[in-house]
Amino acid sequence: MPITMHERVDGAARSAGDTSQPLSAGDFEAYLSEVREIVLAEIVRMMPRGRHTGRLYDLMLEYPLRHGKSLRPALCLAACRAFGGTLSEGIRTAAVIELYHNAFLIHDDVEDGSTHRRSEETLHQKYGVPIAINVGDGILALSLQPLLDNTRLLGLGRALRILETVAAMSRESAEGQMLELDWAASGSEEPGAPDYVRMVYKKTCWYSFIAPLETGAIAAGIDAMRVFQLRKFATVLGIAFQIVDDVLNVDASAHEYGKEPYGDLWEGKRTLLMIHALERATPTERAHAVEVLAKQRPKGTELERLDAVLRECGLGDQQIATIRDALHSTERYRTAADVEFLQRLIRRYDGAGYARAYAERYCIAAQRRFVLLCSMMPSSVHRDFIASVVDFVVSRRK
Amino acid sequence: MPITMHERVDGAARSAGDTSQPLSAGDFEAYLSEVREIVLAEIVRMMPRGRHTGRLYDLMLEYPLRHGKSLRPALCLAACRAFGGTLSEGIRTAAVIELYHNAFLIHDDVEDGSTHRRSEETLHQKYGVPIAINVGDGILALSLQPLLDNTRLLGLGRALRILETVAAMSRESAEGQMLELDWAASGSEEPGAPDYVRMVYKKTCWYSFIAPLETGAIAAGIDAMRVFQLRKFATVLGIAFQIVDDVLNVDASAHEYGKEPYGDLWEGKRTLLMIHALERATPTERAHAVEVLAKQRPKGTELERLDAVLRECGLGDQQIATIRDALHSTERYRTAADVEFLQRLIRRYDGAGYARAYAERYCIAAQRRFVLLCSMMPSSVHRDFIASVVDFVVSRRK
Repeated sequence: MPITMHERVDGAARSAGDTSQPLSAGDFEAYLSEVREIVLAEIVRMMPRGRHTGRLYDLMLEYPLRHGKSLRPALCLAACRAFGGTLSEGIRTAAVIELYHNAFLIHDDVEDGSTHRRSEETLHQKYGVPIAINVGDGILALSLQPLLDNTRLLGLGRALRILETVAAMSRESAEGQMLELDWAASGSEEPGAPDYVRMVYKKTCWYSFIAPLETGAIAAGIDAMRVFQLRKFATVLGIAFQIVDDVLNVDASAHEYGKEPYGDLWEGKRTLLMIHALERATPTERAHAVEVLAKQRPKGTELERLDAVLRECGLGDQQIATIRDALHSTERYRTAADVEFLQRLIRRYDGAGYARAYAERYCIAAQRRFVLLCSMMPSSVHRDFIASVVDFVVSRRK
Repeated sequence: MPITMHERVDGAARSAGDTSQPLSAGDFEAYLSEVREIVLAEIVRMMPRGRHTGRLYDLMLEYPLRHGKSLRPALCLAACRAFGGTLSEGIRTAAVIELYHNAFLIHDDVEDGSTHRRSEETLHQKYGVPIAINVGDGILALSLQPLLDNTRLLGLGRALRILETVAAMSRESAEGQMLELDWAASGSEEPGAPDYVRMVYKKTCWYSFIAPLETGAIAAGIDAMRVFQLRKFATVLGIAFQIVDDVLNVDASAHEYGKEPYGDLWEGKRTLLMIHALERATPTERAHAVEVLAKQRPKGTELERLDAVLRECGLGDQQIATIRDALHSTERYRTAADVEFLQRLIRRYDGAGYARAYAERYCIAAQRRFVLLCSMMPSSVHRDFIASVVDFVVSRRK
């Protein structure tokens, strides 16, 4: 069944305000995969063809070519089409949104020391940190010109509003990332639930929901009042999404969902679950947890290299094991025992239950906000796609 | 003596085409330090005042607050004023040029594993790689909005041309960086002199000369023909500057000039000197040199940490020394002996002499191109400042 991305939204066929129905699971996947194909083709078209650039543009394509969800460009295109824009009005912006996301992932993977992304090695793991940083910078550099070219396609007003939204997205996201890195570094004040929501607003909401939906809608030419409504919807949806994501990360039964089990704990993240547990913990528990959270995530390759060197030096297995243990047990690296301690702490104070209840409010708000939005969009498959995303976030929490 | 940046260039006072005179050393320094002050104030003004951003904006100011030369914003403002623009037309763009430069330095320092920048520790050395990458990204994010605000100040045409120039600068610079990183990784084809010049065009010329001069001149409203002339001038000047810089880096007598002695050799860079030496070397020498260049630069902190861990494990000095030696002598890290070998190789085949002769051509071209440009700019202290930069590049080579 082809989801006709090229189909023109026909406002007259169904009247605005009709109740939106989520797509079937099959149609939802088909929509995403059609977007993936179109956006990837557009990204490939954006890559300069000249020689003398080394492997830069090949490496830029690595993450986009891995099988990602393409949720962000899909939201961008769906918003554009749902508000009456054409595919050609939205596609370039959707491609840029996906490119920014990939630049962010590359740098984020370096910052978090992640080893795998979309079932393959992360870029820095494969090519080293210097190349990974530069490829991320290259993507950011490449993304500016298509947004400037929008002036010819969409007119100056819309093009500048899209550029301003992208500028705000990059700023908010760097600010959110900094908050999280600051919390990870010991010594700063412990964040509370409102701090966490603010960080999520900056990091998750802007990148994954606000900017994709708004830039798509602006490309279609919607006015500032509707953009305002859209942002409110995207904000509550994004917060709900992130908190549910955090809950799933420590829920053993949900580990088929694709992310690294307990990855948040290995990274020492202050999620809402952790924040709640820290607030309820005894002073002794809290002091130990803070100490554990201040450690670094162990880096696989570094330790493997050390092993090889020690062996070359003629040290025996016993000596090497002692040194490895020492490296692991220094204050620098988080151990499996540390992660288990954090897990127990969260379970003891029902961090997951607290976070679920917290997410519940945002899920309900997102559903209400979406109903409001529906009165501004004619019924279409694109509106139904957005309904499906709401449905996905809301039902995933159970 | 105040170099009156605020002084209005008076085209009528002296006629265009007068021979330009370099400023005295004192006036040159005074011009730079006045620019530094004005640009820093503008950068501070650009920083958002809100709370809830962690240390992001404090850390963004770290490099700008260290005593840099401010050559790039000075070229930008000088070009703007020399072509008849006002300070307020150029200042925002000059500040953005300096911000981009600082973002580039932060990421470049991580990529090169540099430990010091402007006599203090590099940002990643002080705060860790994750924070340094994010601060660089934050600077790039922050730099976009002021360029969009230019539309109100300079009108749409100029603002968009400046944005396009900045987009091209970022792209060229990521491409140049990739070429250099590719050469550093073993296995790729050895670059020749034309490859080197192309890399320098992308990396040095665009960042340090083309974009600063062009954006300043565009802010002043010059036409495409004069921009074309300016780019030709900036290109030859930048190439001359970089090659002279490479020569000074291996010239022991010039090490008071502020850079790390033999830093290029420690980093394993393919400079023109190295490329020439590799081309002239015997097959045995070349094979050994290529092997040495493929190694990594040793990382200070990593080794210090290892020492501490080994000591904690109860190993004696002798054992630790053996392990350290092994780490140094593996194929991974470049040693002092390696650097000496590269130094000797360059001396044997007179890489410096070759590079000096190569630079000479570009120095002469830069002087000629500048005379052409002078016929398009009325005489002013700003034009004289640009003349001083040419003079600085040309006379430094001797």
